[in-house]
Amino acid sequence: MATTLEPIEASMATPETSVKYVYSFGGGKAEGNGKMKDVLGGKGAGLAEMTNVGLPVPPGFTIQTEACREYMKGGKTSTAVQKEMLAALKQLEELRGKKLGAPSDPLLVSVRSGAKFSMPGMMDTILNLGLNDQSVKGLAERSHNERFAYDSYRRLIQMFGNVVLDIEKSEFEEVFDGKKHQRKVKLDTDLTAKDLQEVIEGYKKLVKKHTKRDFPQDAVEQLSMARDAVFRSWNNDRAKHYRRMNNIDDAIGTAVNVQSMVFGNLGDTSGTGVGFTRNPATGAKEFYGEFLMNAQGEDVVSGIRTPVPIIGLQEIMPHVYEQLRAITTKMENHYRDMQDFEFTIEDGQLFMLQTRNGKRTGRAAVRVAIQMVEEGLISKEDAVMRVEAIQLNDFLVPSLEEKGVKIEVLSKGLPASPGAAVGQIVFSADEAVAKVQKDKAAQVILVRGETTPEDIHGMEVAAGILTSRGGMTSHAAVVTRGMGKCCVAGAGEIEVDEKKREMRVKGKVLKAGDWISLDGISGRVINGKLNTNPARTDDPELMKFMSWAEPFRKMGVRANADIPRDAKQAAAFGAEGIGLCRTEHMFFAEDRIGHMREMILADNEKDRRAALKKLLPMQRSDFAGLFTALDGYPITIRTIDPPLHEFLPKREDLMVQIAQLEITKPKSPKLKELRHLLSRVEQLHEQNPMLGHRGCRLGITYPEITEMQARAIFEAAVQVTKKGIKAKPEVMIPLTTSLKEMKNQADIVRRVAAEVFEEKGVKVEYMVGTMIELPRAAVVADEIAKEAEFFSFGTNDLTQTTFGFSRDDVGKILPTYFELGILKQDPFAQLDQEGVGQLVKMACEKGRSTRPKLKLGICGEHGGDPSSVEFCARVGLNYVSCSPFRVLIARLAAAQAGLAEKTGSAEAGRSK
Amino acid sequence: MATTLEPIEASMATPETSVKYVYSFGGGKAEGNGKMKDVLGGKGAGLAEMTNVGLPVPPGFTIQTEACREYMKGGKTSTAVQKEMLAALKQLEELRGKKLGAPSDPLLVSVRSGAKFSMPGMMDTILNLGLNDQSVKGLAERSHNERFAYDSYRRLIQMFGNVVLDIEKSEFEEVFDGKKHQRKVKLDTDLTAKDLQEVIEGYKKLVKKHTKRDFPQDAVEQLSMARDAVFRSWNNDRAKHYRRMNNIDDAIGTAVNVQSMVFGNLGDTSGTGVGFTRNPATGAKEFYGEFLMNAQGEDVVSGIRTPVPIIGLQEIMPHVYEQLRAITTKMENHYRDMQDFEFTIEDGQLFMLQTRNGKRTGRAAVRVAIQMVEEGLISKEDAVMRVEAIQLNDFLVPSLEEKGVKIEVLSKGLPASPGAAVGQIVFSADEAVAKVQKDKAAQVILVRGETTPEDIHGMEVAAGILTSRGGMTSHAAVVTRGMGKCCVAGAGEIEVDEKKREMRVKGKVLKAGDWISLDGISGRVINGKLNTNPARTDDPELMKFMSWAEPFRKMGVRANADIPRDAKQAAAFGAEGIGLCRTEHMFFAEDRIGHMREMILADNEKDRRAALKKLLPMQRSDFAGLFTALDGYPITIRTIDPPLHEFLPKREDLMVQIAQLEITKPKSPKLKELRHLLSRVEQLHEQNPMLGHRGCRLGITYPEITEMQARAIFEAAVQVTKKGIKAKPEVMIPLTTSLKEMKNQADIVRRVAAEVFEEKGVKVEYMVGTMIELPRAAVVADEIAKEAEFFSFGTNDLTQTTFGFSRDDVGKILPTYFELGILKQDPFAQLDQEGVGQLVKMACEKGRSTRPKLKLGICGEHGGDPSSVEFCARVGLNYVSCSPFRVLIARLAAAQAGLAEKTGSAEAGRSK
Repeated sequence: MATTLEPIEASMATPETSVKYVYSFGGGKAEGNGKMKDVLGGKGAGLAEMTNVGLPVPPGFTIQTEACREYMKGGKTSTAVQKEMLAALKQLEELRGKKLGAPSDPLLVSVRSGAKFSMPGMMDTILNLGLNDQSVKGLAERSHNERFAYDSYRRLIQMFGNVVLDIEKSEFEEVFDGKKHQRKVKLDTDLTAKDLQEVIEGYKKLVKKHTKRDFPQDAVEQLSMARDAVFRSWNNDRAKHYRRMNNIDDAIGTAVNVQSMVFGNLGDTSGTGVGFTRNPATGAKEFYGEFLMNAQGEDVVSGIRTPVPIIGLQEIMPHVYEQLRAITTKMENHYRDMQDFEFTIEDGQLFMLQTRNGKRTGRAAVRVAIQMVEEGLISKEDAVMRVEAIQLNDFLVPSLEEKGVKIEVLSKGLPASPGAAVGQIVFSADEAVAKVQKDKAAQVILVRGETTPEDIHGMEVAAGILTSRGGMTSHAAVVTRGMGKCCVAGAGEIEVDEKKREMRVKGKVLKAGDWISLDGISGRVINGKLNTNPARTDDPELMKFMSWAEPFRKMGVRANADIPRDAKQAAAFGAEGIGLCRTEHMFFAEDRIGHMREMILADNEKDRRAALKKLLPMQRSDFAGLFTALDGYPITIRTIDPPLHEFLPKREDLMVQIAQLEITKPKSPKLKELRHLLSRVEQLHEQNPMLGHRGCRLGITYPEITEMQARAIFEAAVQVTKKGIKAKPEVMIPLTTSLKEMKNQADIVRRVAAEVFEEKGVKVEYMVGTMIELPRAAVVADEIAKEAEFFSFGTNDLTQTTFGFSRDDVGKILPTYFELGILKQDPFAQLDQEGVGQLVKMACEKGRSTRPKLKLGICGEHGGDPSSVEFCARVGLNYVSCSPFRVLIARLAAAQAGLAEKTGSAEAGRSK
Repeated sequence: MATTLEPIEASMATPETSVKYVYSFGGGKAEGNGKMKDVLGGKGAGLAEMTNVGLPVPPGFTIQTEACREYMKGGKTSTAVQKEMLAALKQLEELRGKKLGAPSDPLLVSVRSGAKFSMPGMMDTILNLGLNDQSVKGLAERSHNERFAYDSYRRLIQMFGNVVLDIEKSEFEEVFDGKKHQRKVKLDTDLTAKDLQEVIEGYKKLVKKHTKRDFPQDAVEQLSMARDAVFRSWNNDRAKHYRRMNNIDDAIGTAVNVQSMVFGNLGDTSGTGVGFTRNPATGAKEFYGEFLMNAQGEDVVSGIRTPVPIIGLQEIMPHVYEQLRAITTKMENHYRDMQDFEFTIEDGQLFMLQTRNGKRTGRAAVRVAIQMVEEGLISKEDAVMRVEAIQLNDFLVPSLEEKGVKIEVLSKGLPASPGAAVGQIVFSADEAVAKVQKDKAAQVILVRGETTPEDIHGMEVAAGILTSRGGMTSHAAVVTRGMGKCCVAGAGEIEVDEKKREMRVKGKVLKAGDWISLDGISGRVINGKLNTNPARTDDPELMKFMSWAEPFRKMGVRANADIPRDAKQAAAFGAEGIGLCRTEHMFFAEDRIGHMREMILADNEKDRRAALKKLLPMQRSDFAGLFTALDGYPITIRTIDPPLHEFLPKREDLMVQIAQLEITKPKSPKLKELRHLLSRVEQLHEQNPMLGHRGCRLGITYPEITEMQARAIFEAAVQVTKKGIKAKPEVMIPLTTSLKEMKNQADIVRRVAAEVFEEKGVKVEYMVGTMIELPRAAVVADEIAKEAEFFSFGTNDLTQTTFGFSRDDVGKILPTYFELGILKQDPFAQLDQEGVGQLVKMACEKGRSTRPKLKLGICGEHGGDPSSVEFCARVGLNYVSCSPFRVLIARLAAAQAGLAEKTGSAEAGRSK
């Protein structure tokens, strides 16, 4: 049979024997090191590095990513991996003087995922592994705390049952809550050791029911199963979703870290916490973090209990606090970047569980970068590369408009992610998505007790997030900061009732659909719908940072703007001209649409010209405004692009109206009028308007439209020139597919220009070029360049036709495509470099083969996407053009591209 | 100013002096020769050749095509051309012993266009040039025929006024008819010399009125102006239209032939005619033609008078007849092809005006080719190249079904173009076009007194043409033969009243809209609507011809067929398999659409699977039928392709129905049902369905559909295999853009195949491949080829997305594009080799770089277009697939491509 399937089983049976699968660490030395992120993952490399540096890291070993990749291919772990793991376990047992699963003083381990890139809250973790019916007794004895031992065992079975055996969490919770109900207690901690033993019995029944076998008592079997579950968790939906959002390769896999457990819940001299060496929200140089006494790590990050600021540790355990400060400072200096760390205190002894470069807001990223330069820790080049371009969005987030408004503060929570958000309350992620799907313009605030990875789809569409539980490092806080979205977390006064779909605060009840406003800087939750103010762009740190970046930038940055206000805004952000002015937007204005319809409904050229004559002065004054706003900068003006029926009422609406009138008022003169209108709409109706009578096809069939537009452009240019303003029009012909189309329209533009200059006695410098937005234009770009003085890539349309994806309809397909991993990114948001990008590259090369100095730009949405900007720099574009609010981002991305080219680095703009 | 316009004026001012612009012929020798078609045009080269061979050609000179090209660029004729022309004129005057425009015995000349390729009736011609108020008297004296002289002068002013000065013909006709009316005569010939002198005065006033100056009396000025008018006529609408239809380059320009006039209208011993050395309709070896005594050439071809068969000349002037036969036979042997010639007899003396390779029907082309091989005139290779592949359509034209039908023959005309046509009468080209635009399925017969080049747009859309005047070489006859369209010409009994929109024959009146049937073989015009029979493909001459062609064919030919009947038809035409079976067509059948809708309306996978289960046995039996019909041949089956809403009622129809019911029967249960249906239709509604949820996107979001189809395919294959039939399924995934999509679907197909083979205990050889029909697929073809075992180019969709042209909507744009010369061909009919073709080529190369033996085919409409087939051969496709009725054409085109490759000729299939 003719198939191309690889004989996978065969290749699995003979893994390369030279691969080392397991790397031990502990006892002051590690087999790996901090540079081995590809092999050990970020966490594993960090543990090795920390161990080597001499930090108090609980010993353990890392199973490397290759084992995960092999598991994904073959569906099982090879004997080679198993063998090395057992050897490492033996070494660990010797180091700790304990044995995994031993009846007395047992060794317990944690099993955690750890990929090359951080994926917070996305991967499954198992703690307390090694406990069984016997060793639990040993632990009780050793810790003098029977309740703790059984609680640990209970937790193990629950985590193991959920993560490894795929049993719903809720089923365990039912058992647990049943016991609490039976004992009539509220808090988990009110249950006794005996109660927990009964809970454990219930859990074990649950396991038996679901898996038809007992909870594994053999500790090594537990370990093997947990390891494989971590491998599998690489491909769970949350993980795939996170990777897609963060552009992480699906194929790299995760490592597994097996590490001795240390316990923060052994009593009042134990505790656990997380922290940052600097403030991740503001960038301020302050020791920053949270901890909980008598708790395990997950209690801090899950948001179930609200943790205490780390400064509190100074009072409780001053020695440990100082030790922690010293260690983390050492780490920051070692890594030359802000550190995000986890620690546990077991019976007064400090252990470092993890340290890594910390995620931060855009504002914090800029401030930290600047301060580290000033501290002599990093170079300016390092600083420029340290900030992801997209993070500059943080400087562009709005703030609440409070002037002259009476403000009712409902509560104050933690300012977990900056900005402001105003919207209608929703209480579930699904509700958020449904509301936005129904109305694209809907603004919603997702209100939850706490968020979990299952809420991500709702968080994506929400304007902001409010939680009543959880701290600055809770799931909601971390994820929203990554998204650049406003979040107020841990607003404990607020009682969120997700079932009743209401929240109660200070005796007030707010229902789903009510409006609230969030202030992500102060943490205030405000009743009602406030207005927001755009960001200030003259932030001094931002300006300093950009002044460092700019010298590396080789590519120009322009903005897409249709009106003077947007043009001015763009200039304020540093735009060096307009890359796309869509002239048709001007026609939708109320005072113009009438003339536009008149033009469209005209049966002949004469009537059409009459209507166009009325539009001429309006367009002329539009252009004069733009030239004036961007005195001296080039402005690319695109001739009319959309199909004409967009300016007319909808066909189906007319049909329904007519059907109704035919029954109710068959003699109405309105009916005749509507029928006439419908007949014209029918003439203009198209099956696939995106592929229809639009772009230069309009200007070719109705040359009088191009003439009018050209006249408006050049008359405006002459007019402002007489006032001493420098106009630089670049007339852009849309949707060309051939030299002949280009020439047809360019001839009109050049003729009209000559006429206007002759009439007015003034000449203005100008160019005529085209958008390259259809595959054929890319293929014959060498031909088109004979007439076109510049190309601007219309990557929205080019993506549509290259993929055969309608932008309006692709929403039906993308979710499935993301889920199946067929697409990783929305190609309309991030340029598809392998497909669409190849056509862009081809067009650049072909165009310049005809006209070596051909000016090249991009004006699709991709012009503001950092990775796309980097691509544009690589293929030699002269400029990118994006929406005004993306100009800053594009400038930084372009600078990073320039720097990357200089240093030969391929990873511009990635601080991961 | 930054523009790219060439300084045209400057380049015009300094033409290359080495160019020879004017070539004389006459007196037994010519400066040019028959091979110089590029330079002299077909007619000019022919005149030179005929002169050199020693034929009695009236002397003259040819102004070469370069002069036309320069004129088109610069808008005027250079002094260099003018100078050479005057020198040639002087030589001509010396040769004839006459002087152009001289008061006594003046030289008169004709001025004709003559491009490289024949463009019958398309270019303007001026006769009798050299006449003025003085020389007309000299002509009268010399010819002893005052009436003839003034009639010639009258004709000159009319033609010159129309062609050179752009005055409407009708204005001259008004003056002429006014005079007839005044003299109360019916025939032109009833007007006396004096009458004609008065007509001339009227004509001259007309010229003065329109041009503000007198009709030019200076003969050289007449000549210069006429020459430039011929140059300009190259770009008139008719000429451009003809070139587009015949794929002739707009840039090549025409030559101008200036030739001494000889007169066929000097009295009863004068005459003029046209002829062919063989019958151009049937190919029979018979001397074939028509003539008129006492007439000028245009009288014969214009169809105004019905000419006499050429055999009649044998009686009137036996000596001239024999001389003509001898000359034309000599010419046929010289050119080794059937000749089309024009002659004039002046006072009993024969002149040959023109000879060229004659246009012929497909049947004639095949017969002539065979006979010439048998006569030893040409080789078999020559024969294969002599027939344009598209001409085989003539063998595929239908015939009237006459069995058991009472036939009322209205009249019998000339069988001008073969086939049969049935349709409703229309009396104008505009009416024909309007009717077909309104209803694409409309069949119309265009009925005219005679057709003119202005009727072409109507002739294109008509099923057949009927004229009451004109012969086998009339405009209608020539053009319809070129189109392969049925025509009955010169049905003189029929009185066509275009104003009243009726035709009268034998006391019967037929109105516009009445049905008639035409028999293009017998020339019968039949009342009413007959049925037609498809063509017989076992024509012995066709079979012989194809048997000569086949050995040169290297590329396979398959057919696109969805049902066994079509598959068998295709096999009868020689198809070697099915290149495209569209499975969705099976779903539109009445007994299936219900299940299909059930499947679409299902809310969940379970219900969808239930509905699919009902469709499974139906599809299985479809496939079993196909496998059986094409036992042993490969069958490419495409999984479901169109968007699902195509299977549901139209959205706007539902909206209107609901709006109506809401008013008339607001409580009807039907209303609820319709609303439910509409809501699902709304969900599936797409702005641009062509770019929407279709192709493999359906199979990916609903894998159960692909599963069902794969199961049906393999179960059918197994079922027929058990009966001893060899099934060769090739499962084709539509609309892929990436390897991952391909793999997703291929995995399903291969899994189901393995399941079915396991269940049934039989294995069947199969392949899984994809359509390449989106630009991205071409760009990443090397990736896709990792999974795809074959590619089939879906050039319909590829053309849509490469151009950004919706096939459904492009009709609104194409007419303007043709008119402006932006497009020469409908890219959906003939593959756009420069654009779309380059993507095809890229995909071939990339695909084979991954999989050297990758099977490549094409299944778009282009698979049946000869020039596209040639392209496919050139880029290395393994086969083309086309509609069953195109299989013969594709086979010949493929053979010609193979032969062209062998001989290194670039002009396969062109007998021009």
